[in-house]
Amino acid sequence: MMKTKAVVSALALLAGLASADLARAASDEPIQPISPPQNINLGMVELGKKLYFDPRLSKSGFISCNSCHNLSMGGTDNIPTSIGDKWQQGPINAPTVLNSSLNVAQFWDGRAADLKAQAGGPIANPGEMAFTHTLALDVLESIPAYVREFKQVFGKDRIDIDQVTLAIAEFEKTLVTPNSRFDQWLLGRQDALTADEMAGYGLFKESGCVACHNGVAVGGNSFQKMGLVEPYKASSPAEGRSAVTGKDADRFNFKVPTLRNVEMTYPYFHDGAANTLTEAVDTMGRLQLGKKFTKDENARIVAFLKTLTGEQPSFTLPVLPPSSDTTPRPKPFDKK
Amino acid sequence: MMKTKAVVSALALLAGLASADLARAASDEPIQPISPPQNINLGMVELGKKLYFDPRLSKSGFISCNSCHNLSMGGTDNIPTSIGDKWQQGPINAPTVLNSSLNVAQFWDGRAADLKAQAGGPIANPGEMAFTHTLALDVLESIPAYVREFKQVFGKDRIDIDQVTLAIAEFEKTLVTPNSRFDQWLLGRQDALTADEMAGYGLFKESGCVACHNGVAVGGNSFQKMGLVEPYKASSPAEGRSAVTGKDADRFNFKVPTLRNVEMTYPYFHDGAANTLTEAVDTMGRLQLGKKFTKDENARIVAFLKTLTGEQPSFTLPVLPPSSDTTPRPKPFDKK
Repeated sequence: MMKTKAVVSALALLAGLASADLARAASDEPIQPISPPQNINLGMVELGKKLYFDPRLSKSGFISCNSCHNLSMGGTDNIPTSIGDKWQQGPINAPTVLNSSLNVAQFWDGRAADLKAQAGGPIANPGEMAFTHTLALDVLESIPAYVREFKQVFGKDRIDIDQVTLAIAEFEKTLVTPNSRFDQWLLGRQDALTADEMAGYGLFKESGCVACHNGVAVGGNSFQKMGLVEPYKASSPAEGRSAVTGKDADRFNFKVPTLRNVEMTYPYFHDGAANTLTEAVDTMGRLQLGKKFTKDENARIVAFLKTLTGEQPSFTLPVLPPSSDTTPRPKPFDKK
Repeated sequence: MMKTKAVVSALALLAGLASADLARAASDEPIQPISPPQNINLGMVELGKKLYFDPRLSKSGFISCNSCHNLSMGGTDNIPTSIGDKWQQGPINAPTVLNSSLNVAQFWDGRAADLKAQAGGPIANPGEMAFTHTLALDVLESIPAYVREFKQVFGKDRIDIDQVTLAIAEFEKTLVTPNSRFDQWLLGRQDALTADEMAGYGLFKESGCVACHNGVAVGGNSFQKMGLVEPYKASSPAEGRSAVTGKDADRFNFKVPTLRNVEMTYPYFHDGAANTLTEAVDTMGRLQLGKKFTKDENARIVAFLKTLTGEQPSFTLPVLPPSSDTTPRPKPFDKK
């Protein structure tokens, strides 16, 4: 017994030392590792997951949150701007939902304070899901299994839009991507990165990329002007933060996108104009930093960026409760 | 030891008797229980699952097999006719992919002999995914993780369309829904059905529904005229089997749809004109059997039909390998 206790104590001591070391190493870097989500309401997550995948929250019955923030594809749709109701072309690139809980605010212009405030937007946007909150609630209230599940989760007799957006937001909080190779390196696994990837990270810091792309999400925590040194010729009419603040100084200020899983979230920029990381790094260097990266430098930075791909959310595809006889039917082809 | 062996033998004997009884009971009925799929190539299933969810097999990069045969919604899209590239309105209701391996042939008119032959159709249909097999292969060949996975599964150096459709078909073979309450009853669980449901099954048999809706899939094994006693006024221009055989006698002959999971596969008929099971049962009774079910009879048949909902396929949402720098980009908004 004594012997076992002594071994356990020695191991605990070693573990304590090691984690202190690692914490120190990671905290020296401008990028922090992703932690698994905490204080999660699992009942709300399961309900929110169903809602996230339910196209009955759209007028057509065809478009769900997952249509444009596809969890098979890095939480994006991988096209320059999204497809909305009746194939309308969206004005801006769909940002990834992955790690979006780490953003300072939601949407490229930050017009939603948090995930809950964001979730109601697309449902009622005539160019996206083209529904209304009232009609979405009519659909949900007509489906007995949803009525029971909302009651179980929220303990209220009626479903309201706050419950819907809260549940979607709770599911979205689980969509973090820990344990990327870069995070393994931050947490002390010395051989997690190759020499080229390490060199790329060095360039990323020295060149100034890290001035905006830092923190846990490697971005997402500030608004910055797109086209700081040289103007950016956008193919999108979006003017960014000024639409929210009304200030001319905020024109073309956009939320700095997270670089987590950036290998999967192409095409890049708010207008989706850059198809490859090579192109995106080149454009960012010139327009934001006044710097022309050599081919080798660019390749190393790209190699580093690809180490930011983390474990993708892994869950069973939800099965949605069927509509009832009284459920209002979708209107995919009405003339209006 | 001897005692244990004796107990095991007695249990085996009981199990043998019980399964013989159950097999006899089930074989007396015109509907047979679903068996789990056999001889499945799991590597091919995993590859096929990715392809099934991959919208890069469409021109727009937005439409996958799962868009119209949505595995969250009974393997259908729950709208009368599907939405294709650029929001084109399809001519016919999307049949469920669930249990489709049990069909005598694929599509409403049976123009594809099997799942493999079916899988290539929508990819190249200008009104659906609007791509070509060549372009789809160009996309797949440009994605290193797909190239490796195809090579692992098929052992060949190049990806061809036969491999793509074989893999999708192999995944689809796994999409059966065993263990419905009706199957539990068939297999001997006497209390699996309520008195109303049993009465509904009685009506289903006596009234003649079972003449076409029989076998393991409760349909799917023959072509029959839609509007046998009274003509059906379809909202779809589709003429059914005659388009395949060229015979005038086959006009308006359609494959009898499976009634498995029919609670989830609304709206009903080849034109998706019936929103509810009540309406579908009423129309079928009048047009196919010359019979007007009373409200009570209709409700009992509907109650029986809802016992055909089986265990829905349960699997982890696949994560798709990202495109490479050389992957041809989707064209969601080109003018052509």
